[in-house]
Amino acid sequence: VACVFMCCLIGTLSSPDPRVRKALIELEASMQTGGQMVLTDAEQRLDALLFEMKQEEIFRRDFPPAMHFFSAKRLIQRSPIFSLLQKMPKGGALHVHDFAMVDVEWLVKNVTYRPHCYMCSTDEPSFRFIFSSQWPKPLPRCSPWVLLENLRSKMVNTTDLDNSIRGNLTLFTDQDPEVAFPSQDVVWDRFEQAFRVVWGLVTYAPVFRDYYYQGLTQFYTDNVMYLELRALLPEVYELDGSTHDRAWTLKTYQDITTQFVSKHPDFFGARIIFTNHRQANRSVVAEAVEEAMKLKKDFPDFMAGFDLVGREDQGKPLWYFRDALSLPAEKGVTLPYFFHAGETDLEGTEVDQNLLDALLLNTSRIGHGFALVRHPVAKDLSRKKGVAVEVCPISNQVLKLVKDLRNHPAAALMLENHPVVISSDDPAMFGASGLSYDFYEAFVGFGGIKSHIGSLKQLAINSIRYSSLSPQQQKEALVLWQKRWNTFVTEIPLNH
Amino acid sequence: VACVFMCCLIGTLSSPDPRVRKALIELEASMQTGGQMVLTDAEQRLDALLFEMKQEEIFRRDFPPAMHFFSAKRLIQRSPIFSLLQKMPKGGALHVHDFAMVDVEWLVKNVTYRPHCYMCSTDEPSFRFIFSSQWPKPLPRCSPWVLLENLRSKMVNTTDLDNSIRGNLTLFTDQDPEVAFPSQDVVWDRFEQAFRVVWGLVTYAPVFRDYYYQGLTQFYTDNVMYLELRALLPEVYELDGSTHDRAWTLKTYQDITTQFVSKHPDFFGARIIFTNHRQANRSVVAEAVEEAMKLKKDFPDFMAGFDLVGREDQGKPLWYFRDALSLPAEKGVTLPYFFHAGETDLEGTEVDQNLLDALLLNTSRIGHGFALVRHPVAKDLSRKKGVAVEVCPISNQVLKLVKDLRNHPAAALMLENHPVVISSDDPAMFGASGLSYDFYEAFVGFGGIKSHIGSLKQLAINSIRYSSLSPQQQKEALVLWQKRWNTFVTEIPLNH
Ligand SMILES: [Zn+2]
Ligand SMILES: [Zn+2]
Repeated sequence: VACVFMCCLIGTLSSPDPRVRKALIELEASMQTGGQMVLTDAEQRLDALLFEMKQEEIFRRDFPPAMHFFSAKRLIQRSPIFSLLQKMPKGGALHVHDFAMVDVEWLVKNVTYRPHCYMCSTDEPSFRFIFSSQWPKPLPRCSPWVLLENLRSKMVNTTDLDNSIRGNLTLFTDQDPEVAFPSQDVVWDRFEQAFRVVWGLVTYAPVFRDYYYQGLTQFYTDNVMYLELRALLPEVYELDGSTHDRAWTLKTYQDITTQFVSKHPDFFGARIIFTNHRQANRSVVAEAVEEAMKLKKDFPDFMAGFDLVGREDQGKPLWYFRDALSLPAEKGVTLPYFFHAGETDLEGTEVDQNLLDALLLNTSRIGHGFALVRHPVAKDLSRKKGVAVEVCPISNQVLKLVKDLRNHPAAALMLENHPVVISSDDPAMFGASGLSYDFYEAFVGFGGIKSHIGSLKQLAINSIRYSSLSPQQQKEALVLWQKRWNTFVTEIPLNH
Repeated sequence: VACVFMCCLIGTLSSPDPRVRKALIELEASMQTGGQMVLTDAEQRLDALLFEMKQEEIFRRDFPPAMHFFSAKRLIQRSPIFSLLQKMPKGGALHVHDFAMVDVEWLVKNVTYRPHCYMCSTDEPSFRFIFSSQWPKPLPRCSPWVLLENLRSKMVNTTDLDNSIRGNLTLFTDQDPEVAFPSQDVVWDRFEQAFRVVWGLVTYAPVFRDYYYQGLTQFYTDNVMYLELRALLPEVYELDGSTHDRAWTLKTYQDITTQFVSKHPDFFGARIIFTNHRQANRSVVAEAVEEAMKLKKDFPDFMAGFDLVGREDQGKPLWYFRDALSLPAEKGVTLPYFFHAGETDLEGTEVDQNLLDALLLNTSRIGHGFALVRHPVAKDLSRKKGVAVEVCPISNQVLKLVKDLRNHPAAALMLENHPVVISSDDPAMFGASGLSYDFYEAFVGFGGIKSHIGSLKQLAINSIRYSSLSPQQQKEALVLWQKRWNTFVTEIPLNH
């Protein structure tokens, strides 16, 4: 409305009025995420500092958000803005996957060094792992199993082996990423491959528990206070080959969360979004939805909802599963959805309709929503219904949707204060960790010099506001966050 | 409004209604450029053909709009969509620069083979040219002049020399473009360098005339019927070293246009937008504006208006020149502006304010407007005031604003039917020619499978509707275009 008024004003002018110009510039600034935030004195001091840092960073020859994250990572680590963002209480991480939470160094140096860890080599070449009390049965299309303990004991130096294992657990590489991953097909193959490598390690019950605890620790250390984890809830196995069911897996997540929170009272907690692969057929998805309803009933506070995962362009569109996904509504059961949608750059395909369909299926949030700016009706709906977009900048770049993160469509969304949260998707796969790297890309890359401390504050608040927590829980989480935020904004400028 | 209604409808649904879904999909489709175009039977037949072609093209491994144009060019040339777009009457080209209209092959094979053509080598290394009846005075930081006629007569084979000259007249290269042009600084340096090489050739009066005639021919051959040329109107020289003033240059453009139109009655004509470099100081720009007012008075029908050119990020912002640019309004003289603005990915700099300032200065169109989606107030103004954005996809890609053209911000603009026209900026510099390559990128890259014959029709109509032609002239141009369009849509499906 303000703008329509301004527009009228302008039509009548012959030479530009500096006051109108000022008003329009301020109007535009106020429209962005956090643009209407009233800042305290401490926040203003911190903002002045941030502005200086940005000025320096943005005119550098190597501007990290314009580069591939694999090449930019070291530059980001040296950035004073990044170290500030690490300290910043960022609220919640709402889009993170179960087996890509923990940096792979821990998997290599801790997990693969545990006893009873067997490895075989596939001809991709890649690895598979299993923990077992007995020599495990051979795996099709894999070399005979070797016990890592034996193998390492025969080696003078295990560096090469460990490097080789590490290289298979993540996409991150020191090579030129454009050469290593020339196309979306290649990078998605390698991405899914890496999950198959991780699988045998993290679905072993003792590792499963430690991995999740370690994941919470890493996010907590990165000043994240809450987590919504997309989890496949796989069968978890014991050393003797026996397995646990989904409810056990979910219960284990809950127990460990409780344990973690009791040791870290300023961590608010975590919830699980049960996920199924989108390449499954209709009956499998229908079963998963049924099970999700049951789990939601049994774990009403811990289970947040349901989602479909995997490469959208290769999977079935949401509409294909409409009957299965309509089951809860038909039965009058509440099962919130958190659909991945619009993680594509193919315009006008069936899959490209996922954004609208996610909204029609009453999704609570949209995972990625990369294509949202190309869907004005869906965009409008998402805004009006307050359905936040979970933006994962590094993931989108590594999976080759966008090269220069200044061109990420969320830049435009944030300049219109579209409901967004920033998340990290699969940090371990991308060589990132926690949320800070993605916050850096969003803050410096999307916003340029325009985004400020108010933008950061709004993003943190959004991550609570658009979480699956109840209004009462959100209030409590906000109080907790605000306390840490106040300390943050007061202390940072003192150290500079 | 339709959408708000739909949104209400959705909120009340539990499981998605296929009729609502269909209505929303149709609503979104109708919102795009050309989405409300009513198609004739012939157009529908052509559209079906186009749809088939797109289906094939879009799922290819090497998708041209996702690649750098230098690597994509050969693929595009083999595309049946491209050959259709070449035949399509595209209306006007509204953003083309004077000395990058004609493919460089013509400069090498025709112009540099003319008598009296001298060349020297700079240490960049690059070349400079001059035509002269006497041996020309040495140029600072250039080798002694050689007469090309003499040089070539001593050579058995002139291929290497010609290749070397060609390579300096254009950015286009067979090398890996990412290696040849690693950064915006490098590519802009080479871009401006190439204009300095061309300069001595094209400002020689006989070449100047032939070059423009040849340019018109190439656009006409590409089925463009009207041109608005951004022209520096330089001093043009004769063989004896004497020079002509700006009015002469403008008059020459006018005469040759008239001559061309008389030979090609289905070509509607051309108009000139006088341009000055934005790195000039205030008094130079003030003088240029004064001269532009005079030229507009002397050539009211042929001179369209005024613009500032050159790399925005390096030049002064428009606001710096506000006094000079307000002169016409103050004097009550009409001087339409066609400002380049928003050709940047630096967010929040002074230069990044150019979009808003161009609108405040009542610009008639916006050149590039690449950053428009990051300026919601300016975007809204541009839409409400009907200020079209001149989108030049290949230029933006070669000058490194965007890599994958599916991510070009104009994709989102076109999906909201923002007023846009497609143009080619400096086709000779990019190894393109006419408009068809840029139409291909826009049609296939921005629109994916969604854009259709209606989008193309709307783009062609936009190029007349948003031209500087008077309403009466636009009507005439549209009649001429419609006639050719009808033939096009009728004949193409017959040949398939
Ligand atoms: Zn994800
Ligand atoms: Zn231009």
